[in-house]
Amino acid sequence: MASEPASADAACPHFTKELSARILAGRPAAVVGLDPRPEALPRTLAPTAPPARRIAAFHEAILPAITRHVPAIKPNIAFFERFGADGYRAYEETCATARQLGCLVIGDVTRGDIGSTAEAYAEQHFTHADAVTLHPYLGSDSLAPFLRRGAALGKGSFVLVRTSNPSAREFQDLPTPQGRLCDAVADAVAAWGRDTVDEHGYSLVGAVVGATYAEELAGFRRRMPHAWLLLPGVGAQGASVDQLGAAFDARGLGALITQSRGITQCFAPGDADWRARIEDAAAAFAAEVLALQSR
Amino acid sequence: MASEPASADAACPHFTKELSARILAGRPAAVVGLDPRPEALPRTLAPTAPPARRIAAFHEAILPAITRHVPAIKPNIAFFERFGADGYRAYEETCATARQLGCLVIGDVTRGDIGSTAEAYAEQHFTHADAVTLHPYLGSDSLAPFLRRGAALGKGSFVLVRTSNPSAREFQDLPTPQGRLCDAVADAVAAWGRDTVDEHGYSLVGAVVGATYAEELAGFRRRMPHAWLLLPGVGAQGASVDQLGAAFDARGLGALITQSRGITQCFAPGDADWRARIEDAAAAFAAEVLALQSR
Repeated sequence: MASEPASADAACPHFTKELSARILAGRPAAVVGLDPRPEALPRTLAPTAPPARRIAAFHEAILPAITRHVPAIKPNIAFFERFGADGYRAYEETCATARQLGCLVIGDVTRGDIGSTAEAYAEQHFTHADAVTLHPYLGSDSLAPFLRRGAALGKGSFVLVRTSNPSAREFQDLPTPQGRLCDAVADAVAAWGRDTVDEHGYSLVGAVVGATYAEELAGFRRRMPHAWLLLPGVGAQGASVDQLGAAFDARGLGALITQSRGITQCFAPGDADWRARIEDAAAAFAAEVLALQSR
Repeated sequence: MASEPASADAACPHFTKELSARILAGRPAAVVGLDPRPEALPRTLAPTAPPARRIAAFHEAILPAITRHVPAIKPNIAFFERFGADGYRAYEETCATARQLGCLVIGDVTRGDIGSTAEAYAEQHFTHADAVTLHPYLGSDSLAPFLRRGAALGKGSFVLVRTSNPSAREFQDLPTPQGRLCDAVADAVAAWGRDTVDEHGYSLVGAVVGATYAEELAGFRRRMPHAWLLLPGVGAQGASVDQLGAAFDARGLGALITQSRGITQCFAPGDADWRARIEDAAAAFAAEVLALQSR
């Protein structure tokens, strides 16, 4: 149904190789999440424009500063979709702005559906992002369109393994013959990624592991030795960077720490110096993550 | 973060009450799924327009005929999103066209994310649809924004319990102390729905159960006595209507059989009589489901 993926081209970086190259060159394993809320935008920024246009303008204004400090961003599509088709366009524009700045884009789209539907999602979301987040509940054939297309184009997939929310334990901790459900999903992530391990030892198939469950990181690191671990939950959700060392390998690779509201909503809507505050917050976050990686 | 839901208004029907009323008045418990593929549209329909515009025009042309025969449609948003913001707008337009025709809309959006993100998704998707499909993996607090807003507005939520695809068994059949994982999710669906059971005995919290696993329907019917079961997988995926009787109660309520490609892609793109073929297919599907309900 969906058109066949072409192979990767020069304008489209190979997600995991590029990530490792940047981090080995001294950039932090830090990702700024974008969860835009109109009520938290600078009051002076296009105050009369519709919400979706204000969101696009905000990202255009802040991304040059943010991408100076971190190698990747993670726009959460829900906060764009909230404004319908116009919001969806703002998502696409935000992705394009970031990629023009040389920044990697992790589309936080949490999609997951049966094969033919997954083909349609994969086609769309890999057009705008270098990697996406995905649900595991439907099993291999629901992930296959992303993994196949990802392998052809050098695009990454982060499968939800252990989510950062309080109710995560309800199903994810159910005991099964392979350990907890989230352990069984972690084992599947390791298996799904076997064919796309790059020269740095990491696969195009990664996992989302909530930073709020820091005590579990060492276990997941062992279960998925070749998976990039995407760690949301720092800041507003209560996790702190210095608890996350176990997710990294000795080179400082293998994990990406994300922070969202703590960076892009670090100012009051009336603050005149919002740009400077965001850049300072991004710089401080980057420095904190770099310090952890080199510990 | 998201604005508070207002209470239900007259223009917005209460999903489960309306569904029961229509079926008790003699309409079939049948839903036509919309998975639009541009290559399967009538060749003569706006041939030079962009794909998203052709999709919207196709639905505008066929929905009057389809909604004469079935009380609800299920647009699958992936096949709209595939065309970006323009496709997203076509999804919104298709939902609006159906609702203007008095048809209930089940948005097949398979969303699922942590609380604040789920708030944004719930706000958006309940604006366009009378019910939505949702992932269970993140647990109660990820569903709560949909259930709370749904209770206030009379909107339904169908949680993925047993999906229709071949790999469904990988995680969903893992044994846990509460039965298989999908049984544990079914028990949670029953609990989540307890507060919104209507006078016909059904809750605003339903479940997706693949029609391709027909032998499991009686068990799920027992585990979730107050849940509407949405049964995809008839037609292209291999299930047939006459195997699905166990999902219904004695009044012919409690389940919705969906068919997609078998209705909206039942003609060759070059066929001149595509409208008549679609209406015939919808009528035949409705009659088949009605016969099953009255058995």
